[in-house]
Amino acid sequence: MNILIKNVLTVFPNGTAKKTNIAVKNDIIFAIGTIPETFTANTTIDGQGKLAVPGFVNAHTHVSMTLLRSYADDMKLMDWLENKIWPVEAKMKKDDIYWGAMLGITEMIKTGTTVFADMYGDMDKVAQAVEETGIRAVLSRGMIGAAPNGQAALQENCTLFENYNNSADGRITVMFGPHAPYTCPPDFLKQVIEKAQKYNAQIHIHLAETEGEVKECLEKYSKTPIAQMEKIGLLDCGVLAAHCVHLSDEDIAIMKKHNVRVAHNPGSNLKLASGIAPVKKLLEKGICVGLGTDGASSNNNLDMLEEINLTALIHKAATLDPLAVPAFKALQMGTYYGAKAVGLNDTGKIEPGMKADITLFSMQGTQWTPCYDAISLLVYSANASMVDTVIVNGKILLDKGLLTTIDEEKIIYEANKCAERLTGKTIKN
Amino acid sequence: MNILIKNVLTVFPNGTAKKTNIAVKNDIIFAIGTIPETFTANTTIDGQGKLAVPGFVNAHTHVSMTLLRSYADDMKLMDWLENKIWPVEAKMKKDDIYWGAMLGITEMIKTGTTVFADMYGDMDKVAQAVEETGIRAVLSRGMIGAAPNGQAALQENCTLFENYNNSADGRITVMFGPHAPYTCPPDFLKQVIEKAQKYNAQIHIHLAETEGEVKECLEKYSKTPIAQMEKIGLLDCGVLAAHCVHLSDEDIAIMKKHNVRVAHNPGSNLKLASGIAPVKKLLEKGICVGLGTDGASSNNNLDMLEEINLTALIHKAATLDPLAVPAFKALQMGTYYGAKAVGLNDTGKIEPGMKADITLFSMQGTQWTPCYDAISLLVYSANASMVDTVIVNGKILLDKGLLTTIDEEKIIYEANKCAERLTGKTIKN
Repeated sequence: MNILIKNVLTVFPNGTAKKTNIAVKNDIIFAIGTIPETFTANTTIDGQGKLAVPGFVNAHTHVSMTLLRSYADDMKLMDWLENKIWPVEAKMKKDDIYWGAMLGITEMIKTGTTVFADMYGDMDKVAQAVEETGIRAVLSRGMIGAAPNGQAALQENCTLFENYNNSADGRITVMFGPHAPYTCPPDFLKQVIEKAQKYNAQIHIHLAETEGEVKECLEKYSKTPIAQMEKIGLLDCGVLAAHCVHLSDEDIAIMKKHNVRVAHNPGSNLKLASGIAPVKKLLEKGICVGLGTDGASSNNNLDMLEEINLTALIHKAATLDPLAVPAFKALQMGTYYGAKAVGLNDTGKIEPGMKADITLFSMQGTQWTPCYDAISLLVYSANASMVDTVIVNGKILLDKGLLTTIDEEKIIYEANKCAERLTGKTIKN
Repeated sequence: MNILIKNVLTVFPNGTAKKTNIAVKNDIIFAIGTIPETFTANTTIDGQGKLAVPGFVNAHTHVSMTLLRSYADDMKLMDWLENKIWPVEAKMKKDDIYWGAMLGITEMIKTGTTVFADMYGDMDKVAQAVEETGIRAVLSRGMIGAAPNGQAALQENCTLFENYNNSADGRITVMFGPHAPYTCPPDFLKQVIEKAQKYNAQIHIHLAETEGEVKECLEKYSKTPIAQMEKIGLLDCGVLAAHCVHLSDEDIAIMKKHNVRVAHNPGSNLKLASGIAPVKKLLEKGICVGLGTDGASSNNNLDMLEEINLTALIHKAATLDPLAVPAFKALQMGTYYGAKAVGLNDTGKIEPGMKADITLFSMQGTQWTPCYDAISLLVYSANASMVDTVIVNGKILLDKGLLTTIDEEKIIYEANKCAERLTGKTIKN
């Protein structure tokens, strides 16, 4: 199917925004500007009053945890995990994983996200949700090496790779997902590395999220989490490292050396009081930093525009530098840098030859007035309810605010049923 | 006119959310729960699927600056002011002030704000916009005592008080607006105090916004801005102090002693890299802290739900305490505390006898699912485009998303014309 978006204000890879035409041929951005006469569109979208940006890339989430949104907030981390999150997670069945994923994917599509990187259990059900909805995803089986099911989880990650890597018209990629250095002993991580090398797969892992984690790692291994991962050889696999809040200069040098890509999760890091990652420094050192929402239980949504906005704001105050992360840089982190972070080199910018993953915002209303600078307005003034159209892999998944592949009402009904069963609580609205 | 809101999930002053009925009689919340049979409604609102919260109070803004939204971002403060903001402000005429105010008020009503505290020039035009639109406001003439027009501005503030205080069915209150200690010499401030006392008016001022301001004040007066204001006697007038980012423990003790109320502006403080105000400490000391957006040129919107969300998030990370500002506390800061901060004791909570300033959110969609805790969802997951209905002083100003007193299209047209004339730039969308 071919799509022509006519006369749309478009954010280009160089940070300018200009009105142009975008032609999509099958799953690819075919041409921008003057469209060859040979191109025939099956669908034409009037781009007047709209802003075209690369679809957002959510570089770190646990999508099925959307079922726990607002279940437990404003608590100390271990109290929250031990008394609220883990007991419920232990009860989750495949159906919960599926409906949680459908709920989260619905929200992501409606808020302009076209790619997400996920780490959780029963990932075949997440893969099913990705297949059915049309979104793009990078999936990994979250593995707690220290848990009784560690070996089983590793086997599941292998099976996930065999069954789903490069499936769903190439929309699904599979990584290996060892949870973190503090939950995965060195021997287990070495097994993961071996499997990742066997499959030529990359690794998605939580690193240096909290002060406590770094302290514990130093006590146990006399190394920071980053240095410990280098020692074990994990950083040679191609690593997407979530969080990276507490880093030394030596850590950053190691990350640069091994081309570790970061998923920065400002909303979750603030809400869980983990701290503020040294993003300005990471960017200055040339490290690739994408953005993620983390799970909705610690955010509490999957709204990437909020993460882009937070990224543009908090690092200015943290460094007392109003130029620390300018608006366009934050947008790049939420799009092209995010794509590179999750290992995809063919999406994240609007350019001929790239995958057709495009989000259109409606620029109606006061928040877009006056429009001296559309990128500033997007990052500092707009919100995700202004998303009008979302195209993934050349297919329109959101059409003037309406989902084309998803029955939202049914998903909300089923998700509420799962949530009530899991928690024994009555849902209010 | 009487309004009955039936069966609506309502946030009560004690932090619970329960389904109930709300009866509005003229400008007052008349009854909650079982409504007396004698009450007759002219309008009945079906509250099913909606959340009723007190209307948001924007405790510090410069509404006409909405004309400069996205005109200049990601710049050093003095570069931004001297080369961008001040030259354009110098060209502003009464028409610009009026259309800028209309643009900002339109946005505020649509995003659930029912009260705003403003400081700027030509405030009679802002008062006109407040009268026409039906919103509630606390207006002050921004005065630069050191400027050639300092005396004229003080006279204008007096005239503003005489003409508008307690006008528009009591919706307008007038304060005195000396800009800041670094722009208003002690002699000028003493004149302001004298006038404020004469009119029994309160004072709205910027205090301790930046490190530079505090340093300069210490060099000039050997006192911090707060201590200097105490010495001059300004703090005895009833003070709404905007920003208060850089405070010593002594400053906080002085503020407590004089019951100084704070307008915390997290979005602006982050964006201008001013820093993060010690809000947790202020709250612990029992100081009243409301929230404001500041002007749209340094935010870039007037969305109070974003400020509430930022407040709940950033102080957790700044203090490494996940309980620093819980969700309901942040909501109170954006409502009841804000009302007290701007000197209004009869609005900011849903309780019989209070002014009928109420915002209803639509709880449809994934961001509200599952709903274990509606207040958490509002603060951490929702966005301001989900505002459905806004009532101010017992009048419905937004009805299922539609403005009842405002022609939004005309306002956007006129605001764009003003913006183009002021800046010489072409508006893009």
